[in-house]
Amino acid sequence: MSKHIAILPGDGIGPEIIAQAVRVLDKLIAEGLDADYQYAPLGGAAYDEYGHPYPEFTQNICRQVDAILLGAVGGPQYDKLERPLRPERGLLAIRKDLNLFGNLRPAILYPELANASTLKPEVVSGLNILIVRELTGDIYFGEPRGIHTLPNGEREGINTMRYSESEIRRIGKIAFEAAQKRNKKLCSVDKANVLETTELWREIITDISRDYPDVSVTHMYVDNAAMQLVKAPKQFDVIVTGNIFGDILSDQASMLSGSIGMLPSASLNEIGKGMYEPSHGSAPDIAGQNLANPLATILSLAMLLRYSLYNEHAAQRIEQAVGKVLAQGLRTSDIFEEGCQRVSCSQMGDAVLAAL
Amino acid sequence: MSKHIAILPGDGIGPEIIAQAVRVLDKLIAEGLDADYQYAPLGGAAYDEYGHPYPEFTQNICRQVDAILLGAVGGPQYDKLERPLRPERGLLAIRKDLNLFGNLRPAILYPELANASTLKPEVVSGLNILIVRELTGDIYFGEPRGIHTLPNGEREGINTMRYSESEIRRIGKIAFEAAQKRNKKLCSVDKANVLETTELWREIITDISRDYPDVSVTHMYVDNAAMQLVKAPKQFDVIVTGNIFGDILSDQASMLSGSIGMLPSASLNEIGKGMYEPSHGSAPDIAGQNLANPLATILSLAMLLRYSLYNEHAAQRIEQAVGKVLAQGLRTSDIFEEGCQRVSCSQMGDAVLAAL
Ligand SMILES: CC(C)[C@H](C(=O)O)[C@@H](O)C(=O)O
Ligand SMILES: CC(C)[C@H](C(=O)O)[C@@H](O)C(=O)O
Repeated sequence: MSKHIAILPGDGIGPEIIAQAVRVLDKLIAEGLDADYQYAPLGGAAYDEYGHPYPEFTQNICRQVDAILLGAVGGPQYDKLERPLRPERGLLAIRKDLNLFGNLRPAILYPELANASTLKPEVVSGLNILIVRELTGDIYFGEPRGIHTLPNGEREGINTMRYSESEIRRIGKIAFEAAQKRNKKLCSVDKANVLETTELWREIITDISRDYPDVSVTHMYVDNAAMQLVKAPKQFDVIVTGNIFGDILSDQASMLSGSIGMLPSASLNEIGKGMYEPSHGSAPDIAGQNLANPLATILSLAMLLRYSLYNEHAAQRIEQAVGKVLAQGLRTSDIFEEGCQRVSCSQMGDAVLAAL
Repeated sequence: MSKHIAILPGDGIGPEIIAQAVRVLDKLIAEGLDADYQYAPLGGAAYDEYGHPYPEFTQNICRQVDAILLGAVGGPQYDKLERPLRPERGLLAIRKDLNLFGNLRPAILYPELANASTLKPEVVSGLNILIVRELTGDIYFGEPRGIHTLPNGEREGINTMRYSESEIRRIGKIAFEAAQKRNKKLCSVDKANVLETTELWREIITDISRDYPDVSVTHMYVDNAAMQLVKAPKQFDVIVTGNIFGDILSDQASMLSGSIGMLPSASLNEIGKGMYEPSHGSAPDIAGQNLANPLATILSLAMLLRYSLYNEHAAQRIEQAVGKVLAQGLRTSDIFEEGCQRVSCSQMGDAVLAAL
């Protein structure tokens, strides 16, 4: 049965990096991959066309497909819009609408790019962490929220952190299963010494751990986790945490490698439907200049093939092709270093296609 | 008028490191500093003696003094207590009780200890950041909070992030004033693209900034701040943020220097009364072995003299003495490196006294 993919280029460098990933997808389809795709706007592009960052047009397509490939959203021209219409809200809305609660964000140091890290080589060489971040709960979506006026006349802002047992259980399951396929070490991050929500989190993770006796589980406070990621990041295999802590720690972790332009991510629902996107943002400052690094998006396509199309073979082909172009010394500006060959976004796409 | 100081040794290495700071204080008093001090327990030590981590005995003393010097609280022997009785809750309680909303946490790389950082020398040399963290509001104290049962029978955890205009204003003021005394750059960290509470935060900080035209202010999302602290930490001068983001970022920042055993902190109220403590924890694993590094505590005493006793001269004397012992090559185990002389906690105290 043919698989359906939605392609959401988004804003900024989104269209450029997506174009290179689509070339790879086209090639796989030409060679027999049973899939088709259609485009839809998200974020600022969707606001421009439909007046909303996640319009019905895009909803209808995204609800029906098996997987979504997203570029990136956001740009300074949208900063003046009221917040509910801003690009990021489109991203939050699609995550919630499609129930994409399981966010997988690898932080990997590619041996060829070891110098790009600001950390000492011995601290990060071989780094390979998977952050599993809950993506549809927590203080991102909890009610009540907003800004109101207090009896004394001043205003107060409120947001609510919330997690139910079942929300914790389902993300915990994803994390334990991921750990089973890796080095069988899971670190659950919370702030159970202060926040009751994460006291429950710790209790449930501990409870689930009985079903995964082969995985060794530890618990760490979020402040300590932020320290340990600087001090000794290689101690981690899989980290599981809530939405807001995961937002912070996954960005911190991805920067450890110095090449966030290389890192893909997946956001999954309970039945393996997923949205795949690079970990980096829409980089408006270099948009339209054919300078962006398309590799994180191409690697996101590999994740899409693995997790939503169950095509491990095609996923590995892409990952090997990316390895090859790095070994050839090709580098976009963000990962360029002395002695390598500087290439544009589309030249990097050419090279991956040739290496496939 | 004689100044009164409360000394709270706390748990773990607390008593050892406090003992060295008290030797310094004794010397200053012997030389004419008009101050006296008395001891009180906090945390586990207070639970052991009074059944509560912040007992009335300690409250009565701490409410009356001009300043408090704290070692550290916490230890594994208290992990089985119900949460409200655990050592950390004593710390939260004293902060709230004394209205110590302004937490100043420097992250400094001492030139002599440059190698201790896991970051490359060029990335961190000369690092000198001040994190100003709000300490008595936010999700740490917001109501409603707790764990309750939902209509469907499962449990849910809740915590509430809250900030009022006046709470933001008073911490903002501290941060702008600190920036004025430094390099006049303030970065306010929030998550205004998602959380309304921090939308208000950003608005108020922007509003206050008009009163400090000499300070250049920027705003950064917390996930980006966690990345930038890894990528280019020297871009920061003063960072101001809320309680939970500050908890995470200040620990991350302090670890950039690789020598958290060197970093003091201050927690101030509106009238300059403060609690001073090292940024590190109670290190139960090395407690009682005379191995701990007392310098962060001794430097906390320097902050106490500066901010609560208005004795800049004595503060600088201590800071210079600490610089001298580092230059002499004396190192406790946590900061030891080849070619230096390894000393115990009390030997480090001896050296500081001699250098004074
Ligand atoms: C753009 C923003 C709403 C989003 C988030 O906070 O989740 C982003 O930072 C991310 O991590 O995908
Ligand atoms: C012990 C804990 C409650 C405390 C906090 O989270 O504030 C600590 O991490 C700190 O930063 O002082």
